[in-house]
Amino acid sequence: MTTKSLFETLNPPVRLLMGPGPINAYPRVHQAISGALIGQYDPVMTGYMNQVQSLYRDLLETDNQQTMLVDGTARAGIEAVLVSVLQPGDKVLIPVMGRFGHLLCEIAQRVGAVVRTIDIEWGEVCPPELVEQAIKEFKPKMLATVQGDTSTTMNQPLAELGEICDRHDVLFYCDATASIAGNDLKVDEWKLDAVSAGLQKCLGGPSGSAPMTLSDKCAEVINKRKHIEAGIKADHHTSGSEAAINSNYFDLAMIMDYWGPERLNHHTEATSMLYAARECARIFLEEGSTNVVARHKQAGDAMAAGLQAMGLTLFGNQAYKMNNVVGVYIPDGVNGEQIREELLLAFGIEIGTSFGPLHGKIWRIGTMGFNARQDCVLTTLAALESILLKYKANISPGQAVTTAMKFYSI
Amino acid sequence: MTTKSLFETLNPPVRLLMGPGPINAYPRVHQAISGALIGQYDPVMTGYMNQVQSLYRDLLETDNQQTMLVDGTARAGIEAVLVSVLQPGDKVLIPVMGRFGHLLCEIAQRVGAVVRTIDIEWGEVCPPELVEQAIKEFKPKMLATVQGDTSTTMNQPLAELGEICDRHDVLFYCDATASIAGNDLKVDEWKLDAVSAGLQKCLGGPSGSAPMTLSDKCAEVINKRKHIEAGIKADHHTSGSEAAINSNYFDLAMIMDYWGPERLNHHTEATSMLYAARECARIFLEEGSTNVVARHKQAGDAMAAGLQAMGLTLFGNQAYKMNNVVGVYIPDGVNGEQIREELLLAFGIEIGTSFGPLHGKIWRIGTMGFNARQDCVLTTLAALESILLKYKANISPGQAVTTAMKFYSI
Repeated sequence: MTTKSLFETLNPPVRLLMGPGPINAYPRVHQAISGALIGQYDPVMTGYMNQVQSLYRDLLETDNQQTMLVDGTARAGIEAVLVSVLQPGDKVLIPVMGRFGHLLCEIAQRVGAVVRTIDIEWGEVCPPELVEQAIKEFKPKMLATVQGDTSTTMNQPLAELGEICDRHDVLFYCDATASIAGNDLKVDEWKLDAVSAGLQKCLGGPSGSAPMTLSDKCAEVINKRKHIEAGIKADHHTSGSEAAINSNYFDLAMIMDYWGPERLNHHTEATSMLYAARECARIFLEEGSTNVVARHKQAGDAMAAGLQAMGLTLFGNQAYKMNNVVGVYIPDGVNGEQIREELLLAFGIEIGTSFGPLHGKIWRIGTMGFNARQDCVLTTLAALESILLKYKANISPGQAVTTAMKFYSI
Repeated sequence: MTTKSLFETLNPPVRLLMGPGPINAYPRVHQAISGALIGQYDPVMTGYMNQVQSLYRDLLETDNQQTMLVDGTARAGIEAVLVSVLQPGDKVLIPVMGRFGHLLCEIAQRVGAVVRTIDIEWGEVCPPELVEQAIKEFKPKMLATVQGDTSTTMNQPLAELGEICDRHDVLFYCDATASIAGNDLKVDEWKLDAVSAGLQKCLGGPSGSAPMTLSDKCAEVINKRKHIEAGIKADHHTSGSEAAINSNYFDLAMIMDYWGPERLNHHTEATSMLYAARECARIFLEEGSTNVVARHKQAGDAMAAGLQAMGLTLFGNQAYKMNNVVGVYIPDGVNGEQIREELLLAFGIEIGTSFGPLHGKIWRIGTMGFNARQDCVLTTLAALESILLKYKANISPGQAVTTAMKFYSI
């Protein structure tokens, strides 16, 4: 055996998480997640599951019956959709405008799909014409997109893509992990067939639960692949006509049966995470979709303006920036990682590094969920400015906070 | 949109969960899970990840470097092991002695493995001779077993199976979800190559995190299938020589890199669940493995003796019963589901129904984790007895509690 230490009582430090996520959870979510456990078929528990479905339908602006949680992090939701819809050999079209587009390709390839990408320069979004042209040529079963790709901070417009998919009878899936609750997301109006997300960005919860929704059409495609486990199969259960899904845990046909009136046993629902997901949605709906998105836009605009007032340059096409995260070039002559470390250790503030071609070039600063607030924006700007001055970066001091304050009444 | 209700503040009822799991979490786990969030690469967070690895090595009695959490429920841990080790066409031998043996087959088939089963009557365990004979004939890559199958309450002895696998160079995997922390589990001594589990049984936490461990040999088999994501791949990264794993989320090669010194980004670790998993292990190690297992045996023996004193008949070969759950025949003339419902609604006590061939024939009563206590045993026996008397079941009243109390000093 290696050690016999029990270590100390859990006592995480106070951090202000202003990176691309995870961020600080709403205090009410911390209360909810510590709620007492109940049995998975307790009528109160199945009642909570039904409430979660209703709350996320409202949050996602959809009437989809099949709206539920996948028990895992955001990428568990992505994989559940892709493995359940795409059979080996099925074609999927994926615009790649950052790391999370690559992730969609990676997951689609793992499940055996034939992937065609539309490669977009990092910092831009994908024009709808390119999508329509590729659909005509490639004739995919599904278009899979990322709405907000945190690696670049860009927010892909979806409404036109939904029209195109509808016209060509292509299923339309979107990974909304980074964008949900910080930017508009109108599932039915935009004709999305599948959306998955996570709690740890603008929904203000911890990572580990993936809300998702499926249109009736998409659910029907998946249910054709339904195969019920031998250990619980009864005479009245029927299997679908097509090949079984190559995963048990991510088999959305079975997960729909678990969340549906039949309550066929699948996994044991992650009760604490469900409590958290329920509270995230209640907080969102109580404040109201329009207000929540406006609050994210206000905080995001204030942060971006403050950074520019400091003399820093923003990354990417600002016309398409997500409300909730901004990319900013690291100024010449300073070490980006050293600044980040000092911000964390001296101020307790975390901002984000970046991936791939942007690594070492930009920081990513988030204003998400509970942290989409004036005090978080101002504190971060003041702290960043003071550390940049300490390292003699060539910036304009004394402007950032005042500029950001103009976005607020006080 | 369907409804606009926000529903009420989360307020789960007080239940005493005496079923086959999930059960009530230790109060300290509820405190830990509500801990403040920190960033995924915060040095405190990566420190907690290292601590979790060390704690679970001690808990699992192993020196395995590759000891970590899979972010999902217990069956996520199972699927991660099977999809990472077994390539399509690989052979796996599975003794099936209950529903969770069927689940191993189901998952193995989904990932494309060729499955051979050893079918054991429900209520018995698998004799080692049958395993050795089947290994000689079938020459599998892996033997996959369930240690404690909650559907039957039986506990499969593992030490001899480990010797057999070692002799025949077969990888030995065990799903210990239901048995861990309530029964002995000596990973290294018993020559196990892979073990996965969940928190929601005797570890006394919520469902949603799957502790697991891999021997060096098993990790090497998996690492031959390593393929790093395009979005984060750098020049110094090398891919394995064999076919990529048919899942991204469950790719244990990537998950090992995320938990290892390289900290290559994969999912965003489910921080709250990690806090819970850490506290479960600390509670276990603080009390001490021997004491925890003895406490489960004491509670389980007291419950079984109490039920028998009431005149009820136990299910299965008692020589192999798990310490932490007992199957008991529903007495003639009463409706098992009605009794369960009344216990839940009148006493707030949950006991378990059963699956498949045992459905409607037996109840399953657990004494797990925080609930492996005298007061839980006595309260459950008293409540069950009073409801059975109300429904005029043919039992011997007044014996159960006294009999169970003999297992305790007061």
